[in-house]
Amino acid sequence: MSSLLEQEIHEQPQVVARLLERESERARRIVADLPAFTHVLIAARGTSDYAATYAKYAWAALARYPVALATPSLHTLYETPPRLDGALVVGISQSGQSPDIVAVLADGKRQNRPTLAITNDGASPLAQMADHVIELHAGPERSVAATKTYTAQLTVMALLAATWNGGADRLAELQTIPDALARTLAGVPELPRQAERYRYMEQCVVIGRGYNYATAFELALKLKELTYVGAGAYSSADFRHGPIATIEPGMPVVLIMPKGRSFDDMLALAHEVDALGAELLVVSDSQQAGSLARTCLPLSASVPEWLSPITAIVPGQLLALHLALARDYDPDTPRGLNKVTRTT
Amino acid sequence: MSSLLEQEIHEQPQVVARLLERESERARRIVADLPAFTHVLIAARGTSDYAATYAKYAWAALARYPVALATPSLHTLYETPPRLDGALVVGISQSGQSPDIVAVLADGKRQNRPTLAITNDGASPLAQMADHVIELHAGPERSVAATKTYTAQLTVMALLAATWNGGADRLAELQTIPDALARTLAGVPELPRQAERYRYMEQCVVIGRGYNYATAFELALKLKELTYVGAGAYSSADFRHGPIATIEPGMPVVLIMPKGRSFDDMLALAHEVDALGAELLVVSDSQQAGSLARTCLPLSASVPEWLSPITAIVPGQLLALHLALARDYDPDTPRGLNKVTRTT
Repeated sequence: MSSLLEQEIHEQPQVVARLLERESERARRIVADLPAFTHVLIAARGTSDYAATYAKYAWAALARYPVALATPSLHTLYETPPRLDGALVVGISQSGQSPDIVAVLADGKRQNRPTLAITNDGASPLAQMADHVIELHAGPERSVAATKTYTAQLTVMALLAATWNGGADRLAELQTIPDALARTLAGVPELPRQAERYRYMEQCVVIGRGYNYATAFELALKLKELTYVGAGAYSSADFRHGPIATIEPGMPVVLIMPKGRSFDDMLALAHEVDALGAELLVVSDSQQAGSLARTCLPLSASVPEWLSPITAIVPGQLLALHLALARDYDPDTPRGLNKVTRTT
Repeated sequence: MSSLLEQEIHEQPQVVARLLERESERARRIVADLPAFTHVLIAARGTSDYAATYAKYAWAALARYPVALATPSLHTLYETPPRLDGALVVGISQSGQSPDIVAVLADGKRQNRPTLAITNDGASPLAQMADHVIELHAGPERSVAATKTYTAQLTVMALLAATWNGGADRLAELQTIPDALARTLAGVPELPRQAERYRYMEQCVVIGRGYNYATAFELALKLKELTYVGAGAYSSADFRHGPIATIEPGMPVVLIMPKGRSFDDMLALAHEVDALGAELLVVSDSQQAGSLARTCLPLSASVPEWLSPITAIVPGQLLALHLALARDYDPDTPRGLNKVTRTT
C-alpha cells in the first residue's frame, strides 16, 4: 500500500475493535453519571458533523433523545448563544482544536450544562473544556482526509446509543462491527479497476436516507477532498424536492442503500433516476439493488441497519482513494487543505 | 414579464407587506398563548427547510431558543420519534401537503406538545393538524420554484423572533422590509445581461455564513431547479473544512455577504478563493465586497443583518431566472419537478 490514506482505511477494523475494548466501560460510566437531560446539542464541523448527523438518527431511535446540530457562529461571531436548559452539550473533533467547537462547549459549561467531548486527542482544548471525554484511540491520522477517525466517531455514537438503550442485543451487535469492516474491505477487490471509468467525471450526486443520510454527506466530502469532483449529497426525500431536476443522461448517481427500513424508498428512487438516464453506482448488500447498478460496490457483510453507516462508508472511501489515484492526485495531501482547520 | 416566476419574484414586496399586516397580531397572540418550552423542533423539506435554517439563527439570537431540524424519517420509516419533552413542534410547508411533515406534527400532538404550522394553505392537512397556524398570504404560487413563499416564510420566522424578543425596534425594523425588497428588485437592472456570461457554466459553489447560511442553500437550490447547474452550498467555515479543495481557476463562487458580523469572515474567504483563481459573484451592500467581484449583484438597500436573508436572496432568484432564460429553459416548469412533492 503506497499511501497513508490506504493504510488508514485498512486500519479501521482494528481501530474500531480497540475503541470498543477501551471505551465501552467509560461510556457506561458516563451514561450513569450524566444528570437528566431532555435533548442534545452537538457541535462539529466537516467529517465530524456527519458523525453528529448519524447521532440524530441513532440517539433518537435507540434512546429517544432529540439531537440538534449547533450553529457555532451563534456562539462566536454573534455572541448570542441559545439558552441550553435541559441540554447535553457534545463536541466532536478529531483534533479537538477548532476554536468554534470549543466555544460551544464553553457556553454549555457557563450555563451549567453537562458537556462531552469526542476526540482523537485527550489532551486537546476540546477535551480540557469538557466534563467527560471519549477518546477515539485511532492513532495519529496522517492523511488529511479523515477515514478511520470517522468510523471511530460513528462507533462512539453507536456505543452511546446502545449504552443508553441498555439492550444486550444492541451491544452484542456492535461487537460484530470490526469483523464486518474487515469483510467489507475484502469484498471490493475490483474497485481500482472500477474507479478508472470515472477518470473524467466532473460532478456526481450521492444519495442516502435515514441512518445513511450521513454516509451520503461523508462520501460526497471524500470525493470533493480527494478527487475535486463537484459531489452533491442529499436524502432521497430532499432530492425529490428540487435537485432531481439536475439529472441528465449519464449523470453519475451514487446510491447508499443497505438493507433496512429505508431500502424500499431508495429502491423507488433508483428506478426514478434510472428512468431519467442516470448512471447508477450502488453501495448495498442487496443483490436486487446491485443488479440495477452500472457500477456495483457490494457490502459483503450485512449488519443491522442502525450500524450500517460504519460499514457503508468503506466502499466510498476506497472509491475516492482509487479515483484520486486514477487522476494522478496525491491522496494524502489534497490541495488547499490542512489536517487541522481552525475556524471561528 | 413573460414568466410566472418573474411575476412572483416581483410580487414579493406586496406579499411581505400583506403578511405583516395580516399576521402580526396573530403572532402576538400565539406567542402569548404558547405554554413554556425550552427548545424548538422544526420539520420542513426543500425551500421550507432553508426558512427553518434561518430560524436556527434568528430564534436563538433574538429569543435564545435553540432550534433542531427534524429528521422526518424517524417519525415515518423508522417509527421511532424522539421524546419531545420541552419542545415546541413547528412544521413549514408551502402546500401543507407533505405526509412526512404532517407526521412530525402528529407526533408532537400525541406527546401533548404545542404545535405550529406555517403554510400558504390554511385548509391543508398540516394546518389542520396544528394547534396554531400562521398563513403566508402569498396568493397561489404557480411557478414550480418557490420564491415569494420563501421570503414570506422567512418573514414569519423573523416576525416570531421579533415578537418573542419584544423589542419595539425589532418590529420596526421588520416593517422596513417591503420597501427594502422593492429597492433590491430595482437595484439589479443589469442582471439579464450579467447572467449571459454563465450560459455554459456547469457547476458552481454558493457560500454564506450565519444568517445567510440559509441564503446560500436556497440560492443553490434555485440554480439547480431552474438552470440544472450542479451548485453546492456551504458556510464559509464548513467550506474551509474540505470542499475548498474543489476550487479550480475559473470556478464560479457566489458569495452572499451583506454587511454585518459575518462580513469579515466572508471577506477573508473572498480573498482566499480569489487567490485560488475562482471567479467571484458577490451579493452585497458593501462596495469593498463588490470591488472584488467579477460579477457584482448589489443589494441596494442595507437592512439589519438579522433581516438580510429576506433581501439577499432576491438577486439570486433573478440570477437563476435569467440564467434559465439564457439557456432557453422554461423557468415555470423545471423538468422532473411538480409543485407539490409528497414524501413519506
